[in-house]
Amino acid sequence: MLTELVDLTDLVDALPEGTVVRDADVIEGYRADMASLVPPGTPVAVVRPRTTEAVSACLAWASRTGTTVVPRGAGTGLSGGATARDDCIVVSLERMDRIREVDPANHTVVVEAGVVNAEVSRAVAEHGLFYPPDPGSFEVSTIGGNLATNAGGMRCVKYGVTRQSVLGLEVVLADGRVLTTGGRTLKDSAGLDLTQLMIGSEGTLGIITSASLRVRPLPESTATFVATFPTLDHGGAALAAICASDMTPSVLEVLDRATVNAVEDHQRMDLDRGTALLLIGQTDGHRSAEDADRLVALCEEAGASMALATSDPEDGQRLMHARRLAGWVVMERGATVVEDVAVPRTRLLQMLQRVEQIGEELGLEICTVGHAGDGNLHPMLCLPDLGPESQDLGLRAADRICQAAIALGGTVTGEHGVGELKRGMLHQQLSETSLSVQAAIKSALDPDGILNPGRGW
Amino acid sequence: MLTELVDLTDLVDALPEGTVVRDADVIEGYRADMASLVPPGTPVAVVRPRTTEAVSACLAWASRTGTTVVPRGAGTGLSGGATARDDCIVVSLERMDRIREVDPANHTVVVEAGVVNAEVSRAVAEHGLFYPPDPGSFEVSTIGGNLATNAGGMRCVKYGVTRQSVLGLEVVLADGRVLTTGGRTLKDSAGLDLTQLMIGSEGTLGIITSASLRVRPLPESTATFVATFPTLDHGGAALAAICASDMTPSVLEVLDRATVNAVEDHQRMDLDRGTALLLIGQTDGHRSAEDADRLVALCEEAGASMALATSDPEDGQRLMHARRLAGWVVMERGATVVEDVAVPRTRLLQMLQRVEQIGEELGLEICTVGHAGDGNLHPMLCLPDLGPESQDLGLRAADRICQAAIALGGTVTGEHGVGELKRGMLHQQLSETSLSVQAAIKSALDPDGILNPGRGW
Repeated sequence: MLTELVDLTDLVDALPEGTVVRDADVIEGYRADMASLVPPGTPVAVVRPRTTEAVSACLAWASRTGTTVVPRGAGTGLSGGATARDDCIVVSLERMDRIREVDPANHTVVVEAGVVNAEVSRAVAEHGLFYPPDPGSFEVSTIGGNLATNAGGMRCVKYGVTRQSVLGLEVVLADGRVLTTGGRTLKDSAGLDLTQLMIGSEGTLGIITSASLRVRPLPESTATFVATFPTLDHGGAALAAICASDMTPSVLEVLDRATVNAVEDHQRMDLDRGTALLLIGQTDGHRSAEDADRLVALCEEAGASMALATSDPEDGQRLMHARRLAGWVVMERGATVVEDVAVPRTRLLQMLQRVEQIGEELGLEICTVGHAGDGNLHPMLCLPDLGPESQDLGLRAADRICQAAIALGGTVTGEHGVGELKRGMLHQQLSETSLSVQAAIKSALDPDGILNPGRGW
Repeated sequence: MLTELVDLTDLVDALPEGTVVRDADVIEGYRADMASLVPPGTPVAVVRPRTTEAVSACLAWASRTGTTVVPRGAGTGLSGGATARDDCIVVSLERMDRIREVDPANHTVVVEAGVVNAEVSRAVAEHGLFYPPDPGSFEVSTIGGNLATNAGGMRCVKYGVTRQSVLGLEVVLADGRVLTTGGRTLKDSAGLDLTQLMIGSEGTLGIITSASLRVRPLPESTATFVATFPTLDHGGAALAAICASDMTPSVLEVLDRATVNAVEDHQRMDLDRGTALLLIGQTDGHRSAEDADRLVALCEEAGASMALATSDPEDGQRLMHARRLAGWVVMERGATVVEDVAVPRTRLLQMLQRVEQIGEELGLEICTVGHAGDGNLHPMLCLPDLGPESQDLGLRAADRICQAAIALGGTVTGEHGVGELKRGMLHQQLSETSLSVQAAIKSALDPDGILNPGRGW
């Protein structure tokens, strides 16, 4: 079956052969991302350009014809920002996967949007460098999607979120013009910061086709520490002490009891199933072992049931594996909605308690992991299935969690983006003035509203 | 004499008594900033609001009457972004100098735009915290101006520029509406990042009245190191080795021979007058002494004539004093234009050589200091006077320096902003597409073009 509601002739003619795909079976694989509560539409075509010029021709055509465009990376988004709309074209950047330049001396690498996050670090590893932003999906998600959502990850606590590792962008605007922003310098005050404006704009202002990324020297060594606490309050005291110290761990993660048990159910790791809270983290640099020992001492002073550090790379990887597994293990068990709220760091425990309470009130199992150093929590809602009632339950829980985050001075999305899922929640967080300024910028850059309409904000 | 070309009655009536100043003697002090090559205009009034509401009333009036508004902090800008225009009103934020909130546990402080940079660190010192961004003017310049230009400083190499220490803003828009952006969380992917858009917009999109700033734990200790090199190449090798290590100094500055001699002329510090390049820097954290020793070793391996480190706070301050003095010493000697270009880090030495060459070709003494770790240089053009011929010479030198920076893949302003001085140079750096996108955003937010017109870009 061929979907053909829109006349694609001119588009097909404007692009290299094989770029426009109209086969319904192929299209099916490009309808949804990983936001299970967002119903996907059906695109008329999937466009898979290999070059910036092809993206430009595609958007020029879309502007002329008023066709809706949904840009797409690897489709791992959790807020529905890449979910297809009916009669749209999906522009998948997957074939723009070249690493254009590696400049090790300047700690800069220029990659196309379709390059997988982990490939960036691999490309510079031989030069003793790495790319810090590491969303949970880093082995599959692409830089384009990471930029569109301003993705986070575990190493943000030390190295910042995606926007802190970007020096410049190449962006195709709605009308097909190619905009280059920023450059190769670490400092730049020349004009409005269009780089920062584009990052996190979720494909609503343009399609990012390439980025100059900042990579950093691989630390000489890394140490890993883990601690469990008899109560949330003890864990909170440890977190406060770590944040008040002059050390910055490179990773500082939290798992609640439900998540610890989910991991143990999946694979025996001898984690303490009775713990109220598990902290796991890393230190890096040339004194990583001593730093980790100091963090362990802070955890012990705060009343940890157990706290230990290791400089053994294999032991460290095993511990970090437990953390990395957590999301996948929970999602494997069945229909899952991964929430993403952030609060001021000192309110992390209050937020955890509110999540527990919401789960109890709604009779819903919630496993929570989080980037403790950033105040960013991912309550994972374990739904019985994806039927209408369960979906409704999931949306109610998500809404209450977001409301709780707002009440604690936080945000409805720390690192996943607004997408389609969180638009209603965003309107609870942002003022009319903020929304109208955002709409004015959107109109200025995409006057016909073809780029990912109804997404982002 | 009272300047009264515009009917200010409604403005005066809308604001608390004493807010609007029309006395020509007072106005005189608000005409210029520190950009000596930008001719100042004459405002019809200076408005000194104490509250966000007053700024709002002022801009609502300016929008209604189509009056040009030039926002102003402490007037230490070096690009003319706060230089008055004829018939404008200058809105000086100096009286909005309250620290609204200190939240030590969350490392957050909320300050008004008129708070002096150094006051932020003082306000949190008792909690063991400090505010990292430290432009050369940090003892006098205000947060509002720092935000408007995305100011830098010496500690950026480790802690980032101003935009990396801001969590949220309060901004009065052209029509008087009050926009709040961001919040208190370290991560936030909720909507377009209006915080980042406003930072560095040089008063062209709104007037920043308050900011939530991120402060950090004071390091347990700080060590200082200094090294001199027989040739620029030796210095370059040391810089490359430092950047390739996994250490990040908290300060990494460079002084050329002319600047070393200017400092020695002013105050005998026993610096080596014959050195080609002087590097001075700091390390901080609980291992600062060992880190500084490692950096000294790297300098020695690279062929330093002299390299030493000290953990003695007084010795360290004395060394850093030489660096901090440099700008003032040169400016004190006479008419000076402080340039501000940045290049990819590995091209710093090439840029230094180009600056020397330009000085020789134009018969102009140029003393250069710079933030070596960021590739950001400040060639200080020592003009004979500020007569028309000297001004022309200054502009020609500045233009050639900026062209050289662009040719080396750099930017015409690393941290001072575009203001009025660098608009022509900016047009050499940015594409038509970039400028038209910036103009579209400007029109969307300030349709009548009342906010600092002809500034920024």
